[in-house]
Amino acid sequence: MKFCSHCAAPISIKIPADDSRERHVCDSCGSIHYFNPRNVVGSIPVFGNQVLLCRRAIEPRHGYWTLPAGFMELGESTSTGAARETHEEAGAVVQIGPLYSLLNVPHAEQVHLFYLASMNSPNFQAGEESLEVALFDERDIPWDEIAFPTVKQTLEWFFADRAAGVFDAGNEFSVRSRDILPTEKI
Amino acid sequence: MKFCSHCAAPISIKIPADDSRERHVCDSCGSIHYFNPRNVVGSIPVFGNQVLLCRRAIEPRHGYWTLPAGFMELGESTSTGAARETHEEAGAVVQIGPLYSLLNVPHAEQVHLFYLASMNSPNFQAGEESLEVALFDERDIPWDEIAFPTVKQTLEWFFADRAAGVFDAGNEFSVRSRDILPTEKI
Repeated sequence: MKFCSHCAAPISIKIPADDSRERHVCDSCGSIHYFNPRNVVGSIPVFGNQVLLCRRAIEPRHGYWTLPAGFMELGESTSTGAARETHEEAGAVVQIGPLYSLLNVPHAEQVHLFYLASMNSPNFQAGEESLEVALFDERDIPWDEIAFPTVKQTLEWFFADRAAGVFDAGNEFSVRSRDILPTEKI
Repeated sequence: MKFCSHCAAPISIKIPADDSRERHVCDSCGSIHYFNPRNVVGSIPVFGNQVLLCRRAIEPRHGYWTLPAGFMELGESTSTGAARETHEEAGAVVQIGPLYSLLNVPHAEQVHLFYLASMNSPNFQAGEESLEVALFDERDIPWDEIAFPTVKQTLEWFFADRAAGVFDAGNEFSVRSRDILPTEKI
C-alpha cells in the first residue's frame, strides 16, 4: 500500500482520464504522482595520460572501481552535477568538457551521462563514499573490478577514441550512446 | 505538510546523517524521499528540407509551436522516449538519429534532450496534445510563436548547423548544449 504525499490517503494504480498509462493516483484528492527515470552524472577526469578512478566505499559494488558519478540534484545542470560529484567523491577540481557518453539503463530507471573533464593538477583525495582514489594509465585499469557496465563501456570507448585521435584539437565527435541490457554483467 | 508515501506519517525537511543536503525524511519510518530533475525527450523530425512542428493543445503555452517532446517514462530509453513522443504528439514515425541538443533548465528541474530524426514519408497527424502539426521550411518557422526556449534554441542551432554543412554525410558533431536562465523569454 502506498499513500498520497499531499493528503496521506491511499493511492491506487490506474490510468487517468487523459493519459495512456498507469499512474499512482490518490483516491481522495486525485493527485497524480509521477515517477520518471533519474540521471546519474559523472566525469572522466584526465590528468596527462591518466584517468582518475574511485574505489567505492558504499553499496552497491562496495570495493569496486568507478568513475566519479552520482544522482543529479534539483537546481543543478548535468555538467555542474558532474563537477560536484567529482569533487565530492574524488576531491578533484575538474574543468568539465563536452558530453562524452549517454547510456540508458531502462531496467534501473536511470540515464548515465559522462563528461570529459581535465585536471590542472594531480590533486585528489577520497571523499566519504570512496575507499581510495587513484590515477590510472590505460594498461593498469582494473577491468575486472569496474563497478558498473556504464563505467566499463565509457572507459572502453574513451581509450579506443583516444587511440584513434578523436580527441585531437579541433575535432568534434558525437556522443557515444547505447542501452545497457538487464543481463549485462561486468 | 507532506506525508510519507510508505507509511502516511508526516514528512520533515532535514539533512540525513550521511548526506549533505536537505531531504524529505519520514518522522515515523525514516524513509528518505528523493526528488531529482526530470528528462524531457523529443526529436527534430526532418522530411526533405522541412521540419515538423506541433501546435500545443495543452498548457503551458497552449497555441504555441513546439518540437514533439515530453517527459521520459520509466522503462524506456531517451531515444525510444523521443520516438514515442513524436508518434503521440505528431502521428509521425521517425528514425531516430544522433543526440543533437541537451539543454538544462535548472529552475524548472528539467533536462531537455532532442534527437535528430528522419521521416521516410510526409505522414503525420495531430495527437491529443496537438491542435495541428505541420512541416515548415526554415523561412516559414513561426519564430515569435515558439513554445519554449529549449525548442527555439535547438531550432536556431539546427538551421545554423545545417547551413554550415555540419550534417553532411560522415561528419560527427558534439552535442549542442547550454543552460536556460530563469529570465529567458521567447
